[in-house]
Amino acid sequence: MSRIPVAVVGATGLAGQQFLASLAAHPMFEVRKLAASSRSAGKPYAQAIRNEQGASRWFCSEPLAPEFAALTVEDSATMTSDGLALCFSAVEADVAREMEPRFAKDIAVISTASAFRYEDDVPVFLPGVNWDHAALIDIQRKNRGWKGFISPGPNCTTVGLAMTLRPLDVAFGVGKVIMTSMQALSGAGRSPGVSAMDILDNIVPYIPKEEEKVEKETLKILGKVGPKGVVPAGLRVSCTCTRVNVLEGHTESVFVELLRKASLADVKAAWRELGSDLRTLGLPSAPEHLVSYTEDPFRPQVRLDRDAEGGMSTVVGRLREDTVLGGVKYMLVSHNTRMGAAKGAILVAEYLAKKGYIPGA
Amino acid sequence: MSRIPVAVVGATGLAGQQFLASLAAHPMFEVRKLAASSRSAGKPYAQAIRNEQGASRWFCSEPLAPEFAALTVEDSATMTSDGLALCFSAVEADVAREMEPRFAKDIAVISTASAFRYEDDVPVFLPGVNWDHAALIDIQRKNRGWKGFISPGPNCTTVGLAMTLRPLDVAFGVGKVIMTSMQALSGAGRSPGVSAMDILDNIVPYIPKEEEKVEKETLKILGKVGPKGVVPAGLRVSCTCTRVNVLEGHTESVFVELLRKASLADVKAAWRELGSDLRTLGLPSAPEHLVSYTEDPFRPQVRLDRDAEGGMSTVVGRLREDTVLGGVKYMLVSHNTRMGAAKGAILVAEYLAKKGYIPGA
Amino acid sequence: MSRIPVAVVGATGLAGQQFLASLAAHPMFEVRKLAASSRSAGKPYAQAIRNEQGASRWFCSEPLAPEFAALTVEDSATMTSDGLALCFSAVEADVAREMEPRFAKDIAVISTASAFRYEDDVPVFLPGVNWDHAALIDIQRKNRGWKGFISPGPNCTTVGLAMTLRPLDVAFGVGKVIMTSMQALSGAGRSPGVSAMDILDNIVPYIPKEEEKVEKETLKILGKVGPKGVVPAGLRVSCTCTRVNVLEGHTESVFVELLRKASLADVKAAWRELGSDLRTLGLPSAPEHLVSYTEDPFRPQVRLDRDAEGGMSTVVGRLREDTVLGGVKYMLVSHNTRMGAAKGAILVAEYLAKKGYIPGA
Amino acid sequence: MSRIPVAVVGATGLAGQQFLASLAAHPMFEVRKLAASSRSAGKPYAQAIRNEQGASRWFCSEPLAPEFAALTVEDSATMTSDGLALCFSAVEADVAREMEPRFAKDIAVISTASAFRYEDDVPVFLPGVNWDHAALIDIQRKNRGWKGFISPGPNCTTVGLAMTLRPLDVAFGVGKVIMTSMQALSGAGRSPGVSAMDILDNIVPYIPKEEEKVEKETLKILGKVGPKGVVPAGLRVSCTCTRVNVLEGHTESVFVELLRKASLADVKAAWRELGSDLRTLGLPSAPEHLVSYTEDPFRPQVRLDRDAEGGMSTVVGRLREDTVLGGVKYMLVSHNTRMGAAKGAILVAEYLAKKGYIPGA
Repeated sequence: MSRIPVAVVGATGLAGQQFLASLAAHPMFEVRKLAASSRSAGKPYAQAIRNEQGASRWFCSEPLAPEFAALTVEDSATMTSDGLALCFSAVEADVAREMEPRFAKDIAVISTASAFRYEDDVPVFLPGVNWDHAALIDIQRKNRGWKGFISPGPNCTTVGLAMTLRPLDVAFGVGKVIMTSMQALSGAGRSPGVSAMDILDNIVPYIPKEEEKVEKETLKILGKVGPKGVVPAGLRVSCTCTRVNVLEGHTESVFVELLRKASLADVKAAWRELGSDLRTLGLPSAPEHLVSYTEDPFRPQVRLDRDAEGGMSTVVGRLREDTVLGGVKYMLVSHNTRMGAAKGAILVAEYLAKKGYIPGA
Repeated sequence: MSRIPVAVVGATGLAGQQFLASLAAHPMFEVRKLAASSRSAGKPYAQAIRNEQGASRWFCSEPLAPEFAALTVEDSATMTSDGLALCFSAVEADVAREMEPRFAKDIAVISTASAFRYEDDVPVFLPGVNWDHAALIDIQRKNRGWKGFISPGPNCTTVGLAMTLRPLDVAFGVGKVIMTSMQALSGAGRSPGVSAMDILDNIVPYIPKEEEKVEKETLKILGKVGPKGVVPAGLRVSCTCTRVNVLEGHTESVFVELLRKASLADVKAAWRELGSDLRTLGLPSAPEHLVSYTEDPFRPQVRLDRDAEGGMSTVVGRLREDTVLGGVKYMLVSHNTRMGAAKGAILVAEYLAKKGYIPGA
Repeated sequence: MSRIPVAVVGATGLAGQQFLASLAAHPMFEVRKLAASSRSAGKPYAQAIRNEQGASRWFCSEPLAPEFAALTVEDSATMTSDGLALCFSAVEADVAREMEPRFAKDIAVISTASAFRYEDDVPVFLPGVNWDHAALIDIQRKNRGWKGFISPGPNCTTVGLAMTLRPLDVAFGVGKVIMTSMQALSGAGRSPGVSAMDILDNIVPYIPKEEEKVEKETLKILGKVGPKGVVPAGLRVSCTCTRVNVLEGHTESVFVELLRKASLADVKAAWRELGSDLRTLGLPSAPEHLVSYTEDPFRPQVRLDRDAEGGMSTVVGRLREDTVLGGVKYMLVSHNTRMGAAKGAILVAEYLAKKGYIPGA
Repeated sequence: MSRIPVAVVGATGLAGQQFLASLAAHPMFEVRKLAASSRSAGKPYAQAIRNEQGASRWFCSEPLAPEFAALTVEDSATMTSDGLALCFSAVEADVAREMEPRFAKDIAVISTASAFRYEDDVPVFLPGVNWDHAALIDIQRKNRGWKGFISPGPNCTTVGLAMTLRPLDVAFGVGKVIMTSMQALSGAGRSPGVSAMDILDNIVPYIPKEEEKVEKETLKILGKVGPKGVVPAGLRVSCTCTRVNVLEGHTESVFVELLRKASLADVKAAWRELGSDLRTLGLPSAPEHLVSYTEDPFRPQVRLDRDAEGGMSTVVGRLREDTVLGGVKYMLVSHNTRMGAAKGAILVAEYLAKKGYIPGA
């Protein structure tokens, strides 16, 4: 069976590299083109990621696949969608706003950029949580006259929260949600990202725009598709987002009001069920458990749990009753650059391809 | 004017050392005796804190005062209160339960141990917040037939929370409170405390018994004194306590329901007023501001703000409306081993001495 | 082919756990018995490594194999060698001194303990470097009247140094060696190991007894076997060993006097050759390259390079001429708990088994 | 007595800020002008150091003095030396090359930039070590026709090494020197400096150009002044410089060949003597001891010792005989941004002012 031809744009940045790390020898997708800024264009990829001293700035723990190393990087401003069925976009939001519609005229664009995340006809998929939002693809195509579409992923901090709230909302109804995050360095990128002097022996209590994103996206992801687009869910989220000195993986402390009575066992059962349909589809990047519950009172610990099931499972622990809100409280760890970014986007692409949403695939 | 003769028991541990660091050349108190376990008894203090290789295990940034270095450590099991008016206790809870009542028969015991914290006739003072709880001293003496009394300080994590809630409760009424803490290593002590391998690139999401303490103590501290003891306040606190890789200083993310409408300016004004009476007393360890508000959106940062006003001021920032709870949310940093432990206890002692509560002083 | 029956003693500690992590599904060895102190004896292994709160203290990134989890831990003071051909020992030096000879009467003991490391008839194998020291096994048996033997591994800090010096000594002759190490936390164990407060934002410039071990062991490992035992090599090593805030992997800065002229290319070629014989033996734990040279001027970096070839390859970089000593200087990273401990010991066992040195195997 | 009017150029960067932190209320110097790049010019200093979100990027632990906060920043490209007797320069090397000679025509320039460090008629002062190099000032003026002069400080890594070698060289003669450094983050600046993801749980084994600087500057500082300029000392230095996850303070592992026999007590005595003349001059920034020896085998530790005597004393420990080189080995900690940068430069300025080298002062 032939693989679907794809491009990765924004390929030299941290998110782009993570796409490549997860697309090496991928059974469904074949990387045909790489694109980045004009500064990198024309160079073999392996050379494009070297710094001034000639040292490789490949940041992933997986080795760079030789076939990608040798690909010549194109200029994302001029690259065409010829020969492609799908474009993975890892560019900054301002670049995405110009570039992604250009590709979406003809092909599918699965993106980690936020540019189109808040438009009502644009789905923000969270695997196993809102596949029904695929109905937005048709609405989007009709609205915009595109053959392709744009599908951005959620902000990485939204991922673990929405993933754990969804089963509770379906089973018991969720009202108020209070969340405090302790987010990893990798969420701030690599060029240069967080300065070491700012974070050693420290916590930075503010990440610009992050809280607004989480509060808004959670409602969209858990919302329903109406005739004109998404109708946000009725629950209400308030959060505080902080940066801590952790390499990878976001930790979140969550307090949830449940509208119907639920025991702790009920809550765990609801989490266990999440994504049971996903398991039958045989998607290469799908974890066995979208949510994994640990009974160890000292877990989840971000260094120990972020890589659970290849970084694709949200690990939850410390479930307790919360009598103040009337519901439960818990801690979660989710991998911000796996399920929370490139690898999550690839899983979405796998699902959409399987379901026939990738035109020309 | 002669200084009040005091002892420090549990003098070799981290909390005990911090008492000594703050009592060097103290204008009101003179350290006459030091006590620790039998293992240290009979040795000069400087020698008692050496490890097996002969290296000094003095952990404070202030140098060890020569007069303390030369004092011979007594065995806390046999030390008497002769010649003392006050005992600062920094022992573990189980030791405190036996030892503190023995001293309280005759002299004041100001303690960082939790042993008696939850008894209704025992005050848990937070400077500037609940001086009216001094009425418990008389109740306690009558109940127990003591000439002295026991006054334990709150858990270090309670300090910043109760300090910032108190003015809001007085001015606007506080209902529900949700708090997530990110606590410093020093809260776990030094022998050995947290293992470096457990916390590097990591967060530990559980500190045994901590959450219960904070939830309970906050209500006691903000409560009223009735005829038989403290009547806890009516607000309700739910929290999650975590350990992060930070040397000193606890960071807390707080969400508060306010029962009466208040603007952000009203809230800041309330915090500004806290402790205005304290400023007139001229107590050596009192900060200028019990609560300091910073308008910098990236503050408070624990490494930069923990030492504000000698570690005696709780630094608050990121005040925002919280429409979910109906109130406000904010971040705070408070120094767990200054106001949150020994130095806070010394400030309480200064107040009680000034007000005539130390017998024989 | 039937597997060789082995025991792991000291199985609950960090080094013991690493033996188990590397012995899961091992093609040559089958773990039949586990032993630890009397405190753990009689419990299933999975239970023996739980802490007071019931949380598992399994520290390895590999999951604990179910067959080991279920094994009942024996008391190492009373465990016999019945049914065993080989014992992997991960106990402390003082325990080893009593216990290892008891087993060596009948079976092979491959150890990470230092107890017998400095006795002249006891080989300290470094894979690919001094297999000729196997001649000591016969001398040891004769000296001591044992059917088995004891073979301790080197101190973890010696490993990378001796590994990189050996090819230089053979090819060019090594005179003076100056080394400064920056050692990982895991070298100090886990119960409790290094206190987080001692090492955050810090370096500890002293590791008791470490420097003496490295200076002595390097000469033994690079020595020749004479009729009565090892004759130490004639080179001279001076070193300073420090502890840094790194989880795993030792970094060493090395300055070497070369007795014969060698270009940098000559030196790299010598390193490349090391262990070429090892590659032909098909040993399961052997790396492709005992020494890997990197041309990236910013490498080796311990977090990025410690896991090279499963933690079994010493990664070297920054090779430069040293005109002061008359030779070369370089940096190396070696994994202190893989090649530097349990996994290195297993590779030695694989070699000795292949070559017929394990009695009854 | 009137204070000497000075300027700080490069005032907004980390080194410039440290000049200001050390010049607040300075008894000898009065800051009259501040200069930085054109981007900051025209703004009050407090505003010039705000970031895009309006947050202050003042990095020093000392508060920003109000008189500096209010000064309007000038453009360093156009600022004149009118009204100044001295200019503290904290600009980058390329800017220094253009700018410093312009000021040196008329006034003294004391700099932390490396631009002129290697010219034979330019002194690189290390306090208490080479005051005799002041003779270069006259040579420089004659050579260049300047009324002022340029005096750059050494690279921060050179400071502790040269400071500890000097007394040994004078007393016993120094031959070969081997040094490995573990350098703090602050040495790489703040905009952005070292990326947190590059250094957490890691060591970076290379700092471009650092080793060459140390090897060359040490010889210059310890050299003699000849008729045409400095004649470098005859000792030979080889070093490896690494970056570690430490906020401030450089740690160095040093091995020294001594040409004449010296006991450890002799070596300590030599260090103790260093700078005894300095103590009589009453310079405000001079420490009591340029070198402090600690007998604690676990010291110097960078977090505990970097601030010794205001960061102006190099703390040395672990002195041992080194039989390989024939001499001694030791560890040192020196504060790279105090004695190693701005505050060291201010001490040099104090000395030169006292001795009459500042024209117009």
